[in-house]
Amino acid sequence: MAKLPQKVQIIPLGGLGEIGKNMTVIRYGDEMIVIDAGLMFPEDDMLGIDLVIPDITYLLENRDSVKAIVLTHGHEDHIGALPYVLKQLDVPVYGTRLTLGILAGRLKENNVPATNLVAVKPGDQIQVGCFKVGFIRVSHSIADAVAISVRTPVGTIVHTGDFKLDQTPIDGKVTDFYAFAELGTKGVLVLLADSTNAERPGYTQSEKSVGLAFDEAFRHARERIIIATFSSNIHRIQQAIDMAVKYKRKVAILGRSMINVVTIALELGYLTVPEGTLIDIDEIPNYPAAEIVILTTGSQGEPMAALTRMAMSDHKKIEILPGDTVIISATPIPGNEKMVSRTVDYLFRQGADVIYEATSGIHASGHASQEELKLIHNLIRPKFFIPVHGEYRHLKKHAKLAQELGMPKENIFVAENGQVLEFSPAQGAINGKVTAGNVLVDGLGVGDVGNIVLRDRRQLAQDGILIVVVTMDKQRSAVIAGPDIVSRGFVYVRESEQLMEEAREKVKQALEKCELNSITEWAVIKSNVRDTLGKYLYEKTRRRPMILPIIMEV
Amino acid sequence: MAKLPQKVQIIPLGGLGEIGKNMTVIRYGDEMIVIDAGLMFPEDDMLGIDLVIPDITYLLENRDSVKAIVLTHGHEDHIGALPYVLKQLDVPVYGTRLTLGILAGRLKENNVPATNLVAVKPGDQIQVGCFKVGFIRVSHSIADAVAISVRTPVGTIVHTGDFKLDQTPIDGKVTDFYAFAELGTKGVLVLLADSTNAERPGYTQSEKSVGLAFDEAFRHARERIIIATFSSNIHRIQQAIDMAVKYKRKVAILGRSMINVVTIALELGYLTVPEGTLIDIDEIPNYPAAEIVILTTGSQGEPMAALTRMAMSDHKKIEILPGDTVIISATPIPGNEKMVSRTVDYLFRQGADVIYEATSGIHASGHASQEELKLIHNLIRPKFFIPVHGEYRHLKKHAKLAQELGMPKENIFVAENGQVLEFSPAQGAINGKVTAGNVLVDGLGVGDVGNIVLRDRRQLAQDGILIVVVTMDKQRSAVIAGPDIVSRGFVYVRESEQLMEEAREKVKQALEKCELNSITEWAVIKSNVRDTLGKYLYEKTRRRPMILPIIMEV
Repeated sequence: MAKLPQKVQIIPLGGLGEIGKNMTVIRYGDEMIVIDAGLMFPEDDMLGIDLVIPDITYLLENRDSVKAIVLTHGHEDHIGALPYVLKQLDVPVYGTRLTLGILAGRLKENNVPATNLVAVKPGDQIQVGCFKVGFIRVSHSIADAVAISVRTPVGTIVHTGDFKLDQTPIDGKVTDFYAFAELGTKGVLVLLADSTNAERPGYTQSEKSVGLAFDEAFRHARERIIIATFSSNIHRIQQAIDMAVKYKRKVAILGRSMINVVTIALELGYLTVPEGTLIDIDEIPNYPAAEIVILTTGSQGEPMAALTRMAMSDHKKIEILPGDTVIISATPIPGNEKMVSRTVDYLFRQGADVIYEATSGIHASGHASQEELKLIHNLIRPKFFIPVHGEYRHLKKHAKLAQELGMPKENIFVAENGQVLEFSPAQGAINGKVTAGNVLVDGLGVGDVGNIVLRDRRQLAQDGILIVVVTMDKQRSAVIAGPDIVSRGFVYVRESEQLMEEAREKVKQALEKCELNSITEWAVIKSNVRDTLGKYLYEKTRRRPMILPIIMEV
Repeated sequence: MAKLPQKVQIIPLGGLGEIGKNMTVIRYGDEMIVIDAGLMFPEDDMLGIDLVIPDITYLLENRDSVKAIVLTHGHEDHIGALPYVLKQLDVPVYGTRLTLGILAGRLKENNVPATNLVAVKPGDQIQVGCFKVGFIRVSHSIADAVAISVRTPVGTIVHTGDFKLDQTPIDGKVTDFYAFAELGTKGVLVLLADSTNAERPGYTQSEKSVGLAFDEAFRHARERIIIATFSSNIHRIQQAIDMAVKYKRKVAILGRSMINVVTIALELGYLTVPEGTLIDIDEIPNYPAAEIVILTTGSQGEPMAALTRMAMSDHKKIEILPGDTVIISATPIPGNEKMVSRTVDYLFRQGADVIYEATSGIHASGHASQEELKLIHNLIRPKFFIPVHGEYRHLKKHAKLAQELGMPKENIFVAENGQVLEFSPAQGAINGKVTAGNVLVDGLGVGDVGNIVLRDRRQLAQDGILIVVVTMDKQRSAVIAGPDIVSRGFVYVRESEQLMEEAREKVKQALEKCELNSITEWAVIKSNVRDTLGKYLYEKTRRRPMILPIIMEV
């Protein structure tokens, strides 16, 4: 009989050195489970890309070993890749009811059958192959979020998922401190913990503090109130609705994802709304402005979202009215700062009063700051630690935090996606690497836009393209029509006729030179045209458009 | 004799509703002066654009009236357009010595003769036509910054320039409160004031507080210290040098703009550096790590700047060493957050310890917060107020502030670039508009890249381009070669051969249909090809590449 493995492996496939596409594999012998399968939003230089998902080659190469996917919560960066993953891997997916409710909606949008979703409750334990998987309630900026404990023959692994320690959560369901303490007492081999706010000293504000800020804003608002927030933050929406009820206002919901999530949350009982509070968008004109609250998407200034379109006077049904109070109940995700500022400016121009500054208390983060992280570490008391869910500096800061609590440096692993981290009861080490990386999704295409296409898009974006078309006689290798030059994204042609005429002359000269030197190989002719024209254009304009010579053979 | 005008006009040509390209015209009758001539950095959607300058059509249409340009300080958003403006307008430029020193460097880089630069000192008054122009010392994040007072026959106008009220400035030269108070007592008609930090309550930290933060960092650093900051912030550089001297370290300067500004500042006496403190980059290896400070550009994560290249192991002369302490002595300008984060991550990966958080005190803003703005308003006590130097929400906040101090709402003008604001001793009103806007600079081209070119670049950036080339016989209007399809930035062709083959078939069908229906007009043929192919590609890929049909006639 084969000797049982003495080590368990943890292999992150996404979420390290980046915020997004979280995916972690736990492997013991021939069995694996996967924690989360998220997407990432494209970087600024990933032109034209819609979203990024993890490269799951490793899972496909070991498809018979993959026993289950377990989910921590319903945010896109934890479930957004599943429509793509489940097309290739047929495994059960375990998650809490709200998480699976949101996932089911995503799968439906992508025409992927939702056949193998298994609902669990915080506190449940399930057996998956050799793994005993536990689900532990935590607070986060979405309801029904859990941490995952995985008992393996080698030891117990705890993954916090995304969390904060909110002592006054809106649904009254506090983080399960006892479960963490119990695990810590029994012994935890490896902890993987959320590093998003590892740079922030102190504690993250409770979600309840936002309710107080809402109360203040509602008390002063004399006309309509419009609140933009993340559609997935059910607790934030609950507080907005509670305030509306307190101040005797009706609530209309705006924006596809907001409507979707509120519908799921109402069905599953995660939102409590008194009868008659919710009204349809079309009913808004039936009420005085002082009796209206509009809950909307667009807190990140996203171009297509409802609030942004309202701000630009581009929404079919609603416009911003002078006297509106707009509350942007979110902070800009890094990279979105300018989009949010632009929306705020437009709202002011429309005569609204806008509450958006972090200082006004209208948003609280969903991630633990340093003091909460220290508490979790001291409850769980792991032997080894892998900071996760953060960019490199977040992981470094979190690692430093663990060191300050007394963990030996060699037991802390600031890892990279794809690295294989191996643990025995006494030892932990990095042992090799598997395939890991980004798969870019553009429209319906998954993975067909790679570096070459992106590089081309960047050049096109900077300086445009010039197409040089020439018709050549096959036999004589002589030019019989052209060269014609067409440009796009380079200059405004009407104003640059002289430049284009001179460019054409240069190309003609290059072609004549080729003919003179009996150069008939098209690749060489094209290369000459490209070099000559490129040099000329750079000299005249200091720009480097893409140059595409095309030879038509007749 | 013609009656003298009873009104003075203020016409902003840049700087309102935006941060950048500051330019304000003051006109009385046939005489104008211009305050500042700055550039703006391109918005994210201005693909391939290098910088943006104000449209000065109005000045060119009235070139004989323009008597002078007066400068408040040497930042790019106040002087950066002058190399372009002075090519078209020959007028004297007044500014303080450091401002003109920096400007002279810019003009030289752009081959513009610096023939008419007139140096002034804070406290000076000059007569320019009917205008009596005064220069008043203020604190800012660059030395030698001034506010401008303009006495006209109708009344006095005060423009604060960019300012903060730093009570402990590094050079000991405090803002000239007396001058402001005196103006206020004599009577000020219109105030134009810096709105950049109008959203921030309280006071802006003194520049000296950064010195304390530096001291703390220097005390703990055991190896090399690298400080990245804005090259124009002479006072910040002075403090860094003072700390180096205190801790017995040598200082090397890195980065073209940093070297330029330090050179100018040393020549003009704005920097005090003890003999032997500065060393060349090449001398760094001659000293122990603990005796080195490197002052560098790259505090905004700019791709070509020294610190960024060092972080990416891409600098010819210097690399980051484990143990280096890197201080990012700046906060990200809105829009630059991701670039700065990326550089910070790379620095951590190289083993450096990085101090970058706003909370660590290693940066202080150069702009007044709310309490300082209130003080300036109460010193100057203007009749009318135009908030300047800010995006719309900044201008609105600043306007609200003035109202809170008791100024009547109708005396406050939240204006737009190009609006003509007219004032008499008793009345102020908006009276018409002049040409104003953005001129885009790309390479050597000024203004030749406009909306159409940008729109094309955006489409190319998103989904690339397909070029369809067909050779047609002129007489028979029949296809004799092609259709050939070439794509760039669309798909990776090798993996999408089938798609491209099917696309080619679709185009053939469209061409055959045209021939069948005796359609010979090329515009119509191209339109058919574009529609057919576009529809097909969208159906298959959900992408909309640019489609460029080209017909070669033979």
